[in-house]
Amino acid sequence: MSVLIVGSTALDSIKTPTRENPRLLGGSASHAAVAASFFSPVKLIGVVGEDFPKKYIELYRRHKIDLSGLQILPGKTFHWSGEYEVNMNNRRTLATELGVIETFQPKLPAAYQDAPFVLLGNIAPALQHSVLDQMKKPKFVVADSMDLWINIALADLLKLLKRVDGFVLNDSEAELLTKEDNVFHALKKIHKLGPKYVIIKKGSHGSSLSGPKGIFICPAYPLHTVEDPTGAGDSFVGGLMGWLAGARGAIDANIRRAMVYGSVTASFCCEGFGLNTTTKTKRTDIEKRVKELEKLTQF
Amino acid sequence: MSVLIVGSTALDSIKTPTRENPRLLGGSASHAAVAASFFSPVKLIGVVGEDFPKKYIELYRRHKIDLSGLQILPGKTFHWSGEYEVNMNNRRTLATELGVIETFQPKLPAAYQDAPFVLLGNIAPALQHSVLDQMKKPKFVVADSMDLWINIALADLLKLLKRVDGFVLNDSEAELLTKEDNVFHALKKIHKLGPKYVIIKKGSHGSSLSGPKGIFICPAYPLHTVEDPTGAGDSFVGGLMGWLAGARGAIDANIRRAMVYGSVTASFCCEGFGLNTTTKTKRTDIEKRVKELEKLTQF
Repeated sequence: MSVLIVGSTALDSIKTPTRENPRLLGGSASHAAVAASFFSPVKLIGVVGEDFPKKYIELYRRHKIDLSGLQILPGKTFHWSGEYEVNMNNRRTLATELGVIETFQPKLPAAYQDAPFVLLGNIAPALQHSVLDQMKKPKFVVADSMDLWINIALADLLKLLKRVDGFVLNDSEAELLTKEDNVFHALKKIHKLGPKYVIIKKGSHGSSLSGPKGIFICPAYPLHTVEDPTGAGDSFVGGLMGWLAGARGAIDANIRRAMVYGSVTASFCCEGFGLNTTTKTKRTDIEKRVKELEKLTQF
Repeated sequence: MSVLIVGSTALDSIKTPTRENPRLLGGSASHAAVAASFFSPVKLIGVVGEDFPKKYIELYRRHKIDLSGLQILPGKTFHWSGEYEVNMNNRRTLATELGVIETFQPKLPAAYQDAPFVLLGNIAPALQHSVLDQMKKPKFVVADSMDLWINIALADLLKLLKRVDGFVLNDSEAELLTKEDNVFHALKKIHKLGPKYVIIKKGSHGSSLSGPKGIFICPAYPLHTVEDPTGAGDSFVGGLMGWLAGARGAIDANIRRAMVYGSVTASFCCEGFGLNTTTKTKRTDIEKRVKELEKLTQF
């Protein structure tokens, strides 16, 4: 089955202690869409400016991503620049130029409106609402978010949580949203806000799911080298939704394995700048790491 | 088989944001010995002063811990006081009174010298050496340590690492020792220093083993409440060594499961002040959490 993905489509200029890479393909929708494309057909919703390089359109196409929902508008593509510290855990934003994303109005082509799986990638909650408003009757909707929206668009976000099946956030965002530092207490409070499935990401420490079948502790694939973690969270949820959309059977029966596939897809993302390593990855590479992760965690 | 455990035997005065508990039974050897006692007979090596409460001797005895290597000397028992911050991850030492531990000379009773399993719990490396010098031919020796010894007794510690089968340390100590923040690079460097098995503890994020059969990612048992994490690392390695000593078969075949038992034993330690919850725990409680942890991590 197909998965519709909305989020930011951006150019990222990223500095790490050892290297600097300007104007890479980035944004939550780009990372999630490429990650999901390993497992299912993807329909992308986003906006770019006239400066958006053709090579990135070709990159999306190589991943067979449906671009009929990608608007190309007069003006500049959303541009983010950031810098990582030595240990790669802390990053700071150097500049944000919103460009065409500032006035973005998602418009769903007719062929998008009955997509069974919907990933509302990290973007303003109002835009996530707008996409949902245009959908017929999706089977499974998951939203991602970030601290910015908890801080400046909380009312919209809380309304959104009542409309989704699953919500994905990282541990510091969970604490910001619930004022709870214990993961169980945070999960309980977030369930009360609406979502049946809540996933808390913990970077290199993996992630935790809380759902109707209880808690699942999902490991991260351990990496020898982290080149650039930008987009890892988007790759995780993209891989997760893509794998779920491609799997037979009930969500409940598949979601743990879907998280493991998301985790492994995100591991490739971290090994190169932007999408450089992810786009060179093959499905067989992913399957190999999933098998390894099974061996690494068996007792 | 039995496990010999050396380390500190102390009185701990612990403050947390909500409570304060003076003169609890503490020390690396106390936590490790009680944890190991769920699985195997334990022989304790340590020293206490004349002020050491009788109720703590009785506590050791209830756990069937052999105390013929516990010296009671004129003077005061080692006393540590510390305070935890709100999130329980950071603690600071308020006072350390060494007392009789300052001049401690471990003396192994004859019946101790052929113990097959040896846990050199956290104490000065010179004392860990002294215990090893008195052993006949132990089957499996594991050492624990702390940042203090890396900073002030590195030469002794490096010599010790050549004499042990396994070494346990936490992630920040691994970085301090190796100057590597990537766990793989740190593990590789520590193996070169001697130990065949290296275990890196990551608190509530679990632990990682590197050994002849590769890497194992060991989950932590997720807790609803952390009352006092003091001694959790000692409980982990105590439970691990106790379970290994009680298991049949090769170390290689058992060590992953031993870590899971250590992890679960440590989870009980965190749920009460000092050893309060651990001493009320039953073997069946531990087995139940191990089974739960299996379910929590299956995919």
